[in-house]
Amino acid sequence: MSNFGFLHLRVVNPYEVAFREARSAVGAAPLLANAEEYNSVAAAVADCTLVVGTTALRDRELQHPLHTLQNGVRVIRRQPASSRVALLFGSEKVGLSRKDMSHCHWLLRVSTRAQHPSMNLGQAVAVCLYELVRNSQPLSDIAKEPRATARHAELITGILVDALRASGYMDRDAETAVEEKVRRMVRRLDLHSADAELLLGMLRQILWKIRRKKEPSQ
Amino acid sequence: MSNFGFLHLRVVNPYEVAFREARSAVGAAPLLANAEEYNSVAAAVADCTLVVGTTALRDRELQHPLHTLQNGVRVIRRQPASSRVALLFGSEKVGLSRKDMSHCHWLLRVSTRAQHPSMNLGQAVAVCLYELVRNSQPLSDIAKEPRATARHAELITGILVDALRASGYMDRDAETAVEEKVRRMVRRLDLHSADAELLLGMLRQILWKIRRKKEPSQ
Repeated sequence: MSNFGFLHLRVVNPYEVAFREARSAVGAAPLLANAEEYNSVAAAVADCTLVVGTTALRDRELQHPLHTLQNGVRVIRRQPASSRVALLFGSEKVGLSRKDMSHCHWLLRVSTRAQHPSMNLGQAVAVCLYELVRNSQPLSDIAKEPRATARHAELITGILVDALRASGYMDRDAETAVEEKVRRMVRRLDLHSADAELLLGMLRQILWKIRRKKEPSQ
Repeated sequence: MSNFGFLHLRVVNPYEVAFREARSAVGAAPLLANAEEYNSVAAAVADCTLVVGTTALRDRELQHPLHTLQNGVRVIRRQPASSRVALLFGSEKVGLSRKDMSHCHWLLRVSTRAQHPSMNLGQAVAVCLYELVRNSQPLSDIAKEPRATARHAELITGILVDALRASGYMDRDAETAVEEKVRRMVRRLDLHSADAELLLGMLRQILWKIRRKKEPSQ
């Protein structure tokens, strides 16, 4: 990260012992010392407008759009300079969980040999960041409609899930599956930030109505 | 190496214990098991027609032509297919010695931040090999997800407007204005066609709930 100028590391529930040792090691990169610790993916990406997951899996196994690294980087570089983009990596052993992925707008994958798709974590990070700075023309500053932050997307997800639960939608399907389905769908909407506010207001009103209606019948 | 399809590793005077352990480890890549051991750089590169060294140092400190990774790879890819090219990496701690470099036709260097030029060995290898295969990879974009038809968008608009009306949202604002606001918002969502179906199902359930609740109080 430091080699390529990416100085903001956020870690989610790191393995405590290893992380403490790493950040206090002599010669540890300042970025490690300054790494921010979170206890959920949602909290870690809350202020980001684009959350990109990384995976070694192929298209057919996933429920997300999947870009090659080169194409994904092109999309990332088209973001307005003001937007915060999170690149999300899973653990060395198991990668991102389905739940982790449900926080992502889309996924990217480094093209590797079919016989050996899964990369070492540090190497995958290095290759992704290299590609990001490879054509280091300044990021496009075309004024683009600002996008909703992950915090807003998560608020919308939560209220929609509540409304669906209160409406009996969950009966059809396992609750967690519905929640992840909603979360993925909301990310795909790629909401403008003003639309996120608008939609939040609408959903809050609808949820309020559903809940208020419940009381008299109790 | 294995990720990117480079299957011929040659090592020069490896640290014996570590190397023996690494190649006999469970799950070690076959390429490690098949690595060839040499006791001099000269012997290791003897059958190669081009030997390229890697370094974190900058031009003025070197007595060799120095290419950026991208330019270097362009030169390498111009070699006839039959020629053997060696990419030479030094040890993690000290890199290539001047003597090692003297076996090289030229050097290449990954562009890094001036404040942090020296890369982790495994990451440097990964980035160099990624660049080597980068342009041989199909750039094929993901088949683009089909988008929702206008008919679907209008169905969603209608149900959302009904749900908002039933929830008392309209009191805030003129009904027509809200309807148009919802219509524009739904178009901006640029829904995938599968998401349109999903969202329709969710909104129908929510609307059904709101309406069903109403009846007892009437």
